Amino acid sequence: MAQIINGKQMATDIQDDLRKEVQQFVAAGNRAPHLTAILVGEDPASERYVKNKVIACKDVGLSSETIVLPAATTQEELLQLIEEKNSDDNVNGVLVQLPVPEHIDERTICNAISVDKDVDGFNELNIGRLALDMTGIVPATPLGIKTMLERSNISTFGRNAVVVGRSKNVSLPLAILLSSDGRNATKALDATVTICHRFTPPKELAKYCRLADIIVVAVGKPGLITKDMVKPGACVIDVGITKVMDEAGQVKLVGDVDFDEVRQVAGHITPVPGGVGPMTVAMLMHNTIQAAKMQARCAKRNH
Amino acid sequence: MAQIINGKQMATDIQDDLRKEVQQFVAAGNRAPHLTAILVGEDPASERYVKNKVIACKDVGLSSETIVLPAATTQEELLQLIEEKNSDDNVNGVLVQLPVPEHIDERTICNAISVDKDVDGFNELNIGRLALDMTGIVPATPLGIKTMLERSNISTFGRNAVVVGRSKNVSLPLAILLSSDGRNATKALDATVTICHRFTPPKELAKYCRLADIIVVAVGKPGLITKDMVKPGACVIDVGITKVMDEAGQVKLVGDVDFDEVRQVAGHITPVPGGVGPMTVAMLMHNTIQAAKMQARCAKRNH
Repeated sequence: MAQIINGKQMATDIQDDLRKEVQQFVAAGNRAPHLTAILVGEDPASERYVKNKVIACKDVGLSSETIVLPAATTQEELLQLIEEKNSDDNVNGVLVQLPVPEHIDERTICNAISVDKDVDGFNELNIGRLALDMTGIVPATPLGIKTMLERSNISTFGRNAVVVGRSKNVSLPLAILLSSDGRNATKALDATVTICHRFTPPKELAKYCRLADIIVVAVGKPGLITKDMVKPGACVIDVGITKVMDEAGQVKLVGDVDFDEVRQVAGHITPVPGGVGPMTVAMLMHNTIQAAKMQARCAKRNH
Repeated sequence: MAQIINGKQMATDIQDDLRKEVQQFVAAGNRAPHLTAILVGEDPASERYVKNKVIACKDVGLSSETIVLPAATTQEELLQLIEEKNSDDNVNGVLVQLPVPEHIDERTICNAISVDKDVDGFNELNIGRLALDMTGIVPATPLGIKTMLERSNISTFGRNAVVVGRSKNVSLPLAILLSSDGRNATKALDATVTICHRFTPPKELAKYCRLADIIVVAVGKPGLITKDMVKPGACVIDVGITKVMDEAGQVKLVGDVDFDEVRQVAGHITPVPGGVGPMTVAMLMHNTIQAAKMQARCAKRNH
């Protein structure tokens, strides 16, 4: 029976450490790091995500503000607000909760956030730096998964990993972190990595999964990963999160992995909810603190 | 017996088309695109590469200059020269031939070349854009391999590909181009892609190669890919290039593939030399022309 990786507990532990880091930072004469979250329109899921981020900020001792803009906000107006926050020395991290309404170009928004305040790590320059194994801000979900593997002592060096999905916010950065050289600045994981996606035939997906010591799935298809696709003892990380109705008519959240079946063969498995989700939030806190520290160092140098 | 993909002929055909493109561009009232190549120190291989690029420029009708700096040139001096070329409207493309001497930081140099003149596509911003499937300048070797696959009618959609190596100039950009979504701006190839590298155990490397419809190897280890590792009918692209002494005491260039053996099972194979090499040069020409066209459009808009 697989060991369940308790993402919630791990995130709590990490946030305990981050709280101390913030206290030291403040004790050294700095303001508490400040995160600005911008939400455009009314989407219940987005509102819940932002609320969780604000709770985490309080927990670790960051100050935060949530700016809610009407759905009809123009791209120009949003860009102007971002520019304001970019040049406000009291703001250390800026994020725009995705998705944005359709009349706004997501990529333009991600690139508008100044690279040193881009705590989501979605700016094209941060993605480029990650691809080159350079110091930068790493998107929170892949960073959270890397941290989970490390904290669970899952060996990755020279092991086989599969990433199912090819999103630019999760799967691609994760594939880069899994496959790249551990001796470089990102301390990557040196695994052999296969990227599967919507056009990978099901038979091939199963074949690659069965070869894998680590399977990470991030597509949003409940039940995609079944027991027969998992090598005994493999580590299975489930990034999927889909709302479904259970037999009793209750809404619940499920991942992409058939959890009850797969846990019988896997060596490690993450639950949904309580797996990757809380780690993402903890890593956002980490990124905001690192951004604030870097900005403080730069400000000192420029004096 | 495998069909040999004649990279030299393909590059000649492409350069014929590019020559016409340049003629039209000039006929429309523009200057011929201009490439500046900078070489630091005396390295026979680098000198040969730059010379081939200059010959190709002449062939397609580009103007070019080669600036050779002494090995003792400081990073500051090199950066100053790049800055000069960045702001010179008569220069459309700038490349610094790698490797640079050890006292110069390669990454700093690559990032210093202005993103719209970065015809090698090594600037962190161009790498980020490629990772995000956005329009930008794609490094010449991976672009050359993609073009080879397309011109040879090798099917990639939903097929299995292996990239052996994880260099940032060839393998990673290629893995991104192979795996990403063909509906986006980079018109990527929608394959399932496995990235193998120095820490992939030999047995696992063989296993992944045998699953592959397309194998691209770029590590510089002669004889790494043998017959038993290749699925009958697979397409094998050899990016390796190593100088060896043959039995007669003659120096010759060989790739990473055991050509004579592998060609007996593969469906397609590229030779070394005369495979990927000439395609890289042709794609550099392509990139320079595209850069010049983009700059001309921007200049017009700004008038």
